[in-house]
Amino acid sequence: MRSVSIIGAGLTTFGEHWEKSFRELIAEAGIQAIQDAGVSGGQIEAIYGGAMASGRFIGQEHIGALIADQLGLNPIPSVRLEAACASGGVALRNAYLAVASGMYDIVAVGGVEKMTEVSTEDAGFALGGAGDQETELFMGATFPALYALLARAHMEEFGTTEEQMAAVAVKNHKNAVNNPFAQYRREITIEDVMKSGYVASPLKLLDCSPITDGAAAVIIASSDVAKKVCENPVEILASEQASDSLALSKRKSLTELDATKVAVKQAYERTGLKAKDIDFAEVHDCFTINEILATEDLGFFKKGEGGKAVEKGKTALGGEIPVNTSGGLKAKGHPVGATGVAQAIEAYWQLRGAADKRQVKDAEYGLTHNVGGSGATAVVNIYRRLEK
Amino acid sequence: MRSVSIIGAGLTTFGEHWEKSFRELIAEAGIQAIQDAGVSGGQIEAIYGGAMASGRFIGQEHIGALIADQLGLNPIPSVRLEAACASGGVALRNAYLAVASGMYDIVAVGGVEKMTEVSTEDAGFALGGAGDQETELFMGATFPALYALLARAHMEEFGTTEEQMAAVAVKNHKNAVNNPFAQYRREITIEDVMKSGYVASPLKLLDCSPITDGAAAVIIASSDVAKKVCENPVEILASEQASDSLALSKRKSLTELDATKVAVKQAYERTGLKAKDIDFAEVHDCFTINEILATEDLGFFKKGEGGKAVEKGKTALGGEIPVNTSGGLKAKGHPVGATGVAQAIEAYWQLRGAADKRQVKDAEYGLTHNVGGSGATAVVNIYRRLEK
Repeated sequence: MRSVSIIGAGLTTFGEHWEKSFRELIAEAGIQAIQDAGVSGGQIEAIYGGAMASGRFIGQEHIGALIADQLGLNPIPSVRLEAACASGGVALRNAYLAVASGMYDIVAVGGVEKMTEVSTEDAGFALGGAGDQETELFMGATFPALYALLARAHMEEFGTTEEQMAAVAVKNHKNAVNNPFAQYRREITIEDVMKSGYVASPLKLLDCSPITDGAAAVIIASSDVAKKVCENPVEILASEQASDSLALSKRKSLTELDATKVAVKQAYERTGLKAKDIDFAEVHDCFTINEILATEDLGFFKKGEGGKAVEKGKTALGGEIPVNTSGGLKAKGHPVGATGVAQAIEAYWQLRGAADKRQVKDAEYGLTHNVGGSGATAVVNIYRRLEK
Repeated sequence: MRSVSIIGAGLTTFGEHWEKSFRELIAEAGIQAIQDAGVSGGQIEAIYGGAMASGRFIGQEHIGALIADQLGLNPIPSVRLEAACASGGVALRNAYLAVASGMYDIVAVGGVEKMTEVSTEDAGFALGGAGDQETELFMGATFPALYALLARAHMEEFGTTEEQMAAVAVKNHKNAVNNPFAQYRREITIEDVMKSGYVASPLKLLDCSPITDGAAAVIIASSDVAKKVCENPVEILASEQASDSLALSKRKSLTELDATKVAVKQAYERTGLKAKDIDFAEVHDCFTINEILATEDLGFFKKGEGGKAVEKGKTALGGEIPVNTSGGLKAKGHPVGATGVAQAIEAYWQLRGAADKRQVKDAEYGLTHNVGGSGATAVVNIYRRLEK
């Protein structure tokens, strides 16, 4: 397999885009990414798109072809990948494999979701499709209720507190202030989170990532090509993915996501790195509890210590291991199909020293962690600047 | 890139499976394929699933993880690919790339759709998502109406007749009689087709493929591994894909599908083969006109000659180039996400000499052709028995 690098990125602002359609969002991000890479459209050989539930959100399938069409890139092959909220992550991973195989030299990856075209109720139903509808949503468990079960289990087993979960939201909102692409660029306090209404106890409104419209795109290339066309490519050292049962009821444990653990173990093995070598991480904080689970499952902290770690500032910018410098899903926003690609963009910017006020100093290795549903899919990537 | 071969296949019967769920169908096909390949579940390293509109048909996304879960194959990576009615074809192609890259040695590919859980109206809306909803379905053009436009253009330009289109249906029904997996195992006549009601003039009910439930699965492996574990592997010599504009209104021509032409050109270039070298083909006859377009665009007949060719029996079993020996989408059935994988299974069976009464004699090279929507995606594969 050949080495693969990111050579360009494009991102729309995340938020409620009443004035922009699905196709306008993906075109905006895609064109930016192509321009940023400094390649011509004609050099792009294939497209990998990620979208979770476009059929339910906008009544449109055939998203791969739509993206190629919007970018004027016909007749190159273009597909959509879906793995619920990890759709962007699996799109990037399969693009990576296609370049690594030698099939293509330069490929575009897009992630997109337009979630505000339907009612909150319909959006809730669509998002429930990330879990096991037959044993969960259809039986009355909303998607937030699934993570509430994980949160409750963690509280019971390790004494994690609602205030510790709130600290995740507070940190990520603080980071988002410095991210011009974020949905919520304002600080909140622990008290704000604690006073917000319960969505599914113990998770409150401000523990939850929002409904978001947005798109993200990156251009990737074989590292040989990347060195020729790009000033500062960022190499994807590993892209690993794992699965777990869709239904929470079939899991061995409710205080860890096995798919995360399997994927990161493979990523560490492939790179020869350890958790302590990672300088920053973008993790899947769809609900605050999931950032706590992730920082433990990725090996940054011992199991059960994630709540205390965020409370002590260990995951803040300038802390031991900065997590979600972008603002994370909580404050940057979570257009489900775009999230995995947007995480890669934050890593790309950080490793190029282009993250402005949220820059992690001397960052050498970055990690991204994208989860589908309540953990039935996890994708973990590790990146560094490409050595010339 | 490494050579890749099919080493096992599993197929459910196609039809209205009131007694079987989406997840039961995929489990049935998947387990059959694993048994047929003679490998253990533990040897499978990744899963690529194809499904078009599971969100609309069964309210479930996250299909990759669902398949891994149903087959007891966690924690291996599993993704869903979507390219409308070419979802199965793109799933197989990306699995092929993942093995060709050296990332995996043995991978499972599944295609599935459960279309009968919703009303015909809702199914029509879901299928409309294969075209450009904004400029087509939302403006009143149903999905059959799009192919009706292509049919009308072909009739105008080349004098193709409704009887010639009917001959496609008659041939495919005849082939399906000998396919125990087919939805409609009964012969029909030209008169039957001509007397059936118009769905979208000039296309009549018996010009249209049906609403179908079903699943198909294959196990693929690097050819080195295939030689060791399998008696008669079938090599995938090429798997090529192309895209075109989603909306018919943006196409240069309505009498050809450019994506088919681009994909097959690449497939012929990669293999050094020509159309005349192909011994049989499974093509995407979602509507009878599309088989006529396909036999021309794939190079079997000159543009405009496809209607006459089928009328003269050139595409019948025993003819010049047997097309859709399985019964095709028309008579075998068209569970949209499964179709591309089921086509590969027919090629696999034909090349192993296992097609029983529909066997093409001395078949050396087979071709499959899977189309998404009204032609915005096309996937063309070429196969032969793996030389030992």
